[in-house]
Amino acid sequence: MIPTRFCWTKLETLATEVFKQTGVSAAKAKVVAESLVHADLRGIESHGLSRMPIYVKRIEAGLIERVEEPQLVIQEGATALVDGKNQLGAVVGLMALEQAIKLARQTGIGFVGVRHSNHFGTCSYYAERAIAEGLILLALTNAPESMAPSGGIRPFLGTNPIAVGIPAGQEPSFLLDMATSVTARGKIVMAAKKGEAIPADWAIDKDGMPTTKPEQALLGSLLPIGGAKGYGLAMFIDLLCGLLTGAAFGPGVKSLYDNWEHPQNVGHIFFVIDIQRFMPLPVFQQNMDEYIRQVKSGPKKEGTSEILIPGEIESRKRQERLKNGIPYSANVVEELTQLCATYGINFGDAQLTS
Amino acid sequence: MIPTRFCWTKLETLATEVFKQTGVSAAKAKVVAESLVHADLRGIESHGLSRMPIYVKRIEAGLIERVEEPQLVIQEGATALVDGKNQLGAVVGLMALEQAIKLARQTGIGFVGVRHSNHFGTCSYYAERAIAEGLILLALTNAPESMAPSGGIRPFLGTNPIAVGIPAGQEPSFLLDMATSVTARGKIVMAAKKGEAIPADWAIDKDGMPTTKPEQALLGSLLPIGGAKGYGLAMFIDLLCGLLTGAAFGPGVKSLYDNWEHPQNVGHIFFVIDIQRFMPLPVFQQNMDEYIRQVKSGPKKEGTSEILIPGEIESRKRQERLKNGIPYSANVVEELTQLCATYGINFGDAQLTS
Repeated sequence: MIPTRFCWTKLETLATEVFKQTGVSAAKAKVVAESLVHADLRGIESHGLSRMPIYVKRIEAGLIERVEEPQLVIQEGATALVDGKNQLGAVVGLMALEQAIKLARQTGIGFVGVRHSNHFGTCSYYAERAIAEGLILLALTNAPESMAPSGGIRPFLGTNPIAVGIPAGQEPSFLLDMATSVTARGKIVMAAKKGEAIPADWAIDKDGMPTTKPEQALLGSLLPIGGAKGYGLAMFIDLLCGLLTGAAFGPGVKSLYDNWEHPQNVGHIFFVIDIQRFMPLPVFQQNMDEYIRQVKSGPKKEGTSEILIPGEIESRKRQERLKNGIPYSANVVEELTQLCATYGINFGDAQLTS
Repeated sequence: MIPTRFCWTKLETLATEVFKQTGVSAAKAKVVAESLVHADLRGIESHGLSRMPIYVKRIEAGLIERVEEPQLVIQEGATALVDGKNQLGAVVGLMALEQAIKLARQTGIGFVGVRHSNHFGTCSYYAERAIAEGLILLALTNAPESMAPSGGIRPFLGTNPIAVGIPAGQEPSFLLDMATSVTARGKIVMAAKKGEAIPADWAIDKDGMPTTKPEQALLGSLLPIGGAKGYGLAMFIDLLCGLLTGAAFGPGVKSLYDNWEHPQNVGHIFFVIDIQRFMPLPVFQQNMDEYIRQVKSGPKKEGTSEILIPGEIESRKRQERLKNGIPYSANVVEELTQLCATYGINFGDAQLTS
């Protein structure tokens, strides 16, 4: 059976409407809807509209604020600190990104820390915007506990992702968006549902031993990439996003799904570089194109049809989905249909009519 | 047999003298000597005085400049670009770091790119200095080709390290200094010498296949941490250090050991954050201490005596070696003895007299 495909513009409109009905402003609703559909377009389903139900649930539970605005607490030189005022993460993130871009235009660099935020969607949402403005973005965020320190057995660090966007010219831009864990918890949940074994480097059990059993892994911790290296990367991200900004850190960052008493208090860092301080943008973009062509034209391993640049798969998927629509799994369709119905909206209306 | 131990101050004096005799100024000679002994004190032998012979050889071959000074090409807002003028890497690196620190004091952030530099030693040398000034440092450098892109078989990227220094108060500061490859080429060379197999995730052979044979690995490529993730990290570091600064990038960065026709043209990034723009330094340091204590006091895996913070092992080794001296392997002692003799210096004079 070919899955039903949905039209991204209709999805944005529909998701905007849902968020508006929860009591957030039209402008904020649009940003969050955009951020989620952006992820679905790039094939990052885990950060797409499948997150809408949990966002809505937290708004309705009063754990995400509807009415306040993110606030600029400090702005001095090339740095700023934003208090997210517990708004929807994408709203806070976009405001902070815009601040970082403004600073970068003024001083060459913008470094913005954020506290009191929430899950802010996929980092690539921000990277794509910076790229469109001819800027380099380094974005970091902390996340709820899921990884133990090296040698430890209890989760302390989040999967704390790092994203980097660097604009090219004709070639697809460089867009790295990666968690510092080997894999996402969601993939282990999926393996457990299917009764499949997981690779031994994904997770440890509650005693700190490597495990291929997803049920044991879910009681334990995710493993970082590169052992102690990934542990160090995840910790540096937590220290900047959490400690430096005054947000929560380590196990203090509350779970999006499991904590119904406190706001998440996630912290982010947006660091924007104005390329033009170093060389004219067209020259840089041309150099990027040459770099990418050089990488892609190198000799390939047997069975590899093409060498890819970070973000290239997602950018192709986006092109395809802009044209042919976004497919959702049956359970996501069901969940979104139910959620929309609660607000008197028919999710099926977003189906692509060919 | 207990290896002979050497006194770090005497080593610094002696190495300074050697570099002076190659024709570089006393000030520059001292910086490079300091940087190398710093690495030996921290137990990073691969970046210690064992590099002195190759540095000297490149100076004598005219591939590292003796007399010019690194030059500030651009300084605008919070950014600067340094032309290393093909000076010794540590001299260039330290000048760029000082510039980044100056900018950070002025605007909260200092972002300095560097081109026309050389191997600049261990990143922790710079991180330690930033930490001592109560600043956060993120340092990046590119390096000669040793890793293939994911799906490729010919080395394109260097082991491009990332270093982060974050000051604590009473507890040891956070000091992450890691290559983006799983291991160093030197460890594979060592395994080959000993006739030992290597782990299958260290390298691929010339056809891109995983190998446990060090000889095959040396004809192939190192593997990045976390597969495509480490590939992406190494590439972003190359794009900032190489492309943005106008330094060499990819296979354009020349080998320290194997290229005797061209300067290396390494590129670096120094990014300094002034903590005090966000909160008073003592508050931050106290929070760091609490964070570190929280991590270290977590439950441990059986057989793990202690949870460690990035840089903690090295910092302890440093304390021990400051007191008890630095041991060198017999072949390093021999090589350094020969090199020193060429300049009429007795390496044995640096031995620790108890």
